Amino acid sequence: MKTGIFTGSFDPFTVGHADIVRRALPLFDRIVIGVGVNERKVCMQTAGRRVEAIASLYAAEPRVEVRTYSDLTVDFARREHAGFIIKGVRSMRDFEYEREQADINRRIGGVETVLLFAAPQYESVSSSMVRELIHFGRSVDEFLPVKR
Amino acid sequence: MKTGIFTGSFDPFTVGHADIVRRALPLFDRIVIGVGVNERKVCMQTAGRRVEAIASLYAAEPRVEVRTYSDLTVDFARREHAGFIIKGVRSMRDFEYEREQADINRRIGGVETVLLFAAPQYESVSSSMVRELIHFGRSVDEFLPVKR
Amino acid sequence: MKTGIFTGSFDPFTVGHADIVRRALPLFDRIVIGVGVNERKVCMQTAGRRVEAIASLYAAEPRVEVRTYSDLTVDFARREHAGFIIKGVRSMRDFEYEREQADINRRIGGVETVLLFAAPQYESVSSSMVRELIHFGRSVDEFLPVKR
Amino acid sequence: MKTGIFTGSFDPFTVGHADIVRRALPLFDRIVIGVGVNERKVCMQTAGRRVEAIASLYAAEPRVEVRTYSDLTVDFARREHAGFIIKGVRSMRDFEYEREQADINRRIGGVETVLLFAAPQYESVSSSMVRELIHFGRSVDEFLPVKR
Amino acid sequence: MKTGIFTGSFDPFTVGHADIVRRALPLFDRIVIGVGVNERKVCMQTAGRRVEAIASLYAAEPRVEVRTYSDLTVDFARREHAGFIIKGVRSMRDFEYEREQADINRRIGGVETVLLFAAPQYESVSSSMVRELIHFGRSVDEFLPVKR
Amino acid sequence: MKTGIFTGSFDPFTVGHADIVRRALPLFDRIVIGVGVNERKVCMQTAGRRVEAIASLYAAEPRVEVRTYSDLTVDFARREHAGFIIKGVRSMRDFEYEREQADINRRIGGVETVLLFAAPQYESVSSSMVRELIHFGRSVDEFLPVKR
Repeated sequence: MKTGIFTGSFDPFTVGHADIVRRALPLFDRIVIGVGVNERKVCMQTAGRRVEAIASLYAAEPRVEVRTYSDLTVDFARREHAGFIIKGVRSMRDFEYEREQADINRRIGGVETVLLFAAPQYESVSSSMVRELIHFGRSVDEFLPVKR
Repeated sequence: MKTGIFTGSFDPFTVGHADIVRRALPLFDRIVIGVGVNERKVCMQTAGRRVEAIASLYAAEPRVEVRTYSDLTVDFARREHAGFIIKGVRSMRDFEYEREQADINRRIGGVETVLLFAAPQYESVSSSMVRELIHFGRSVDEFLPVKR
Repeated sequence: MKTGIFTGSFDPFTVGHADIVRRALPLFDRIVIGVGVNERKVCMQTAGRRVEAIASLYAAEPRVEVRTYSDLTVDFARREHAGFIIKGVRSMRDFEYEREQADINRRIGGVETVLLFAAPQYESVSSSMVRELIHFGRSVDEFLPVKR
Repeated sequence: MKTGIFTGSFDPFTVGHADIVRRALPLFDRIVIGVGVNERKVCMQTAGRRVEAIASLYAAEPRVEVRTYSDLTVDFARREHAGFIIKGVRSMRDFEYEREQADINRRIGGVETVLLFAAPQYESVSSSMVRELIHFGRSVDEFLPVKR
Repeated sequence: MKTGIFTGSFDPFTVGHADIVRRALPLFDRIVIGVGVNERKVCMQTAGRRVEAIASLYAAEPRVEVRTYSDLTVDFARREHAGFIIKGVRSMRDFEYEREQADINRRIGGVETVLLFAAPQYESVSSSMVRELIHFGRSVDEFLPVKR
Repeated sequence: MKTGIFTGSFDPFTVGHADIVRRALPLFDRIVIGVGVNERKVCMQTAGRRVEAIASLYAAEPRVEVRTYSDLTVDFARREHAGFIIKGVRSMRDFEYEREQADINRRIGGVETVLLFAAPQYESVSSSMVRELIHFGRSVDEFLPVKR
């Protein structure tokens, strides 16, 4: 069974994240979405709420599972028997950041990182931008995925 | 059957290319290496010689096939029933180039592009660099893959 | 009168180019599209044909004019009494290239360069890509602007 | 009336900022400098002091106005009847950041972003660098604009 | 006497840092490693411990000295009679950051910055990554230099 | 004796090149400027003329020598007993290109590459830009170094 993990803070999970999962699914038998819990980071939503929101999106897709994790990404991958980390890249900054992470994860955990380019219409969609809009009372519906 | 194509001029096929194929194999059931034939480009080796050299590397790996093609990458993908194009990225320049290609190939052919980062030790290895070294009479053995 | 020039080979003029002109129009009283004629460059269409095609798009827009030019961009700007060069940027590579050009044009001609980001859906649309698709017999209608 | 806004923390307003305003003025009938007030950010100077300092620079230029704002940039643009956001870009990092912002501002507010390249001599001048020099007791006169 | 300074937080000093010092040594008569003390930054190790750890690595190399400093890098350079700042660059982000710093340091202190590319195998090694691994209880021996 | 080589086509040698030599001189006992002769490249000036022009600039500086070379840069370095290649970087594109070259030159020749950032005022000055201006009959005096 080919398993990939898709990890992040997902605070919140955006249409951009959902698009990467949708496009990565044909590559894998199973994708585990890992919601990172980091006590040093203040989040808008609790990890539990974030897992719930994401899980409800994939209620009809048994190949997608959602969990929290609070250790290293490579440790999460090992527990899930995943050989791959899935990443969407939106920009050069993402590219450089993920290159460092991918190299370290290959060295310390033997886990491979697979990249997909963010679709053009989602290149500027980020969780931090959505939180900013929410902070200023704007509707963010167009940036959040809907259950199909 | 999950098929990915890995395309390029491969003039010559380097250790960097071989490393991408090796790391992409666990993701696919079958990888077809497509040697692009471009009448507007002068090559060091004929396409036939390039196919031969690559095929001999994978003689013991039935999941890897090698062919020439001279039309669009998306047309080659369709003929090979491949849903994915595999790319190794070594630099920002590669990243931007592949982003454009990936977007066009998704739009006109519905084919997805999957990226792997070049391993650090192969980041500066390119076919053009190898050709340059050959032109000046240098040994290039360390940059060419060996049959295992 | 505030005049901006928008220059390039436009071989061909794409939906991306048209989008930049459309978005730049509110900034200027008059935009002159300059089709660069470069005897060292082989083009798909003659400069005359390119001017004609572009001019027909803007037949109903008196604020847009189209001309060829074969000297420096700053000389073309001076002849057209334009204080600004308009540029769309699609990528980092464009950004660096335009930075150099803009600096030189400011130094030798006192002309300012104004940049607009390419809209996400046009980021991967380039004249060279359109020519490549034409070369392989693909329809390129979706990448060419239509007269409104 | 063509209005552009030029926004930032301006803590402090540098020669680089002043250069962008100077070069953007020929494009607009009116430029409103918006000093962003962000309760989550600790500033060296109060917003009031920053507005005062900037306003005094442009006392003789009726086409430049200065205000604070504490909501979204697009809301500030709407209140000022501005169709354009003016930005100076100094680096790739700026470029990517502004691309994201510009795309979101076009989508949610219909406001266009116009970029000017920072002049080479101001490429390394930033408010944070000036604050760092002040922190260490250095003179920063050469980095602050003078009233003409 | 040709002196270069090599400055940073070095929290901790990694194999990547050690590699830059080793490769820069043939260029200089003396390299002073400056451990930056910044009261606004929380560190894993005290500055004293960091100096000690680094000094022990170079106990047998009289051309390398280690000190703390808490003012501007150019002030540290002047005190050490150093005409050069040595920097290793691992990525574009480093490149842009160092470009700004180098320009300011040349302007305000007349000090030149000399860059070496990080070796490929150290491109993803950073102090923050090492701290992250330590935080999660991982061994980081392979990322820390050993006294020879 | 510490020797560095500074290589390129230098067609022509610009104020930007001269600035790098000037700033690199304090690091070295001797700098050898290597004018690359490449039969596959059409140049504006013969290699002999280029050597002559550069040599006349440094007639009063015995530590700078000028030669042609037509083999690999590492071979030229070895013949000149140079342990270092000096490079000026103007942009990201330069940075990535030089990173690849530096890595290969370290691997195949054991030669180290030392980078200096182009000074801001020379960032957009390149030989190709100067040739373009000459082609169009513009004066290029401000971009060419003068003998002191």
